Amino acid sequence: MRILGVDPGLQTTGYGVIRVGARDATLMEGGVVRGGSASRAMEQRLTAIYGGIAEVLADHSPEALALEKVYTHYRYPATAVAMAHARGVIVLAAADKGVPVFDYAATHVKLALAGSGAATKVQVQRAVKDRLGLSSVPEPNDVADALALAICHWQTAASRQVAQQAARMARAGRGAG
Amino acid sequence: MRILGVDPGLQTTGYGVIRVGARDATLMEGGVVRGGSASRAMEQRLTAIYGGIAEVLADHSPEALALEKVYTHYRYPATAVAMAHARGVIVLAAADKGVPVFDYAATHVKLALAGSGAATKVQVQRAVKDRLGLSSVPEPNDVADALALAICHWQTAASRQVAQQAARMARAGRGAG
Repeated sequence: MRILGVDPGLQTTGYGVIRVGARDATLMEGGVVRGGSASRAMEQRLTAIYGGIAEVLADHSPEALALEKVYTHYRYPATAVAMAHARGVIVLAAADKGVPVFDYAATHVKLALAGSGAATKVQVQRAVKDRLGLSSVPEPNDVADALALAICHWQTAASRQVAQQAARMARAGRGAG
Repeated sequence: MRILGVDPGLQTTGYGVIRVGARDATLMEGGVVRGGSASRAMEQRLTAIYGGIAEVLADHSPEALALEKVYTHYRYPATAVAMAHARGVIVLAAADKGVPVFDYAATHVKLALAGSGAATKVQVQRAVKDRLGLSSVPEPNDVADALALAICHWQTAASRQVAQQAARMARAGRGAG
């Protein structure tokens, strides 16, 4: 299974693709799509972001795209609104390729990666490096953040499967008993 | 010249196309694109909105798309963020067709339509009806709001032309003097 994590931004959208094996995950590609500075027309920025993510989707054919949930109580509402424009075209790019989108709360990502919903950014970045067996933390931060989302989806999907399997076994046990 | 005004929303996106003549404007088409309720996946809602607006753009080939400027000090930040997702795919649809996007502050729209930046919604809606020579206010409100934006762009573009012409004449006058 391949998972694409994306950290949306009008100026810089980070992305990271991981390939998940039986027990571990490896980094396939990480990078940024540049929407350009605020002086650029919104049409051009969104076209660049849509096109860049569509290209990554075409190159890697991931089974899932993971995003961070949007918070509306952001300390910086202008950032949340700008980000939502980028998020809109990224979700559209996924829909165009039939790739399902999953979103995770920031605390969920921290918990999945670093074992605590209150983990620091540095702790999460170190966890990304360790889980993917990298020699250093991926840069820029947008790439590390995108990879954290991809890893979070992997772990969440894996624990969902374990839970489903446990439920099936419990049902089978009841059926047999 | 044809102008498409759009009032973005994830549930309902209103749109209105006007054709502008030498002195007046006529309604070509008004309607809504339904993204569907919040229970629907974001992928599906954004795909529906993108597709609907792309269709209107293809049908009418407008020279401009007019939107309301986003405010980040919205009283309802959740609404602003949801709307920005829709706005993102609408701007992308315009970019894909090479249609330039213009955005106007709400007070600018009120001033252009009803002569005051503090005009009420009802005053603006009545102005839409009058400017387009309609027998009643277009419904639902999203359509009237979208048409107000289209009319605002028409008037703003027209007054810009007048100002540019005046400037040219002033320069020519100085040149002759």
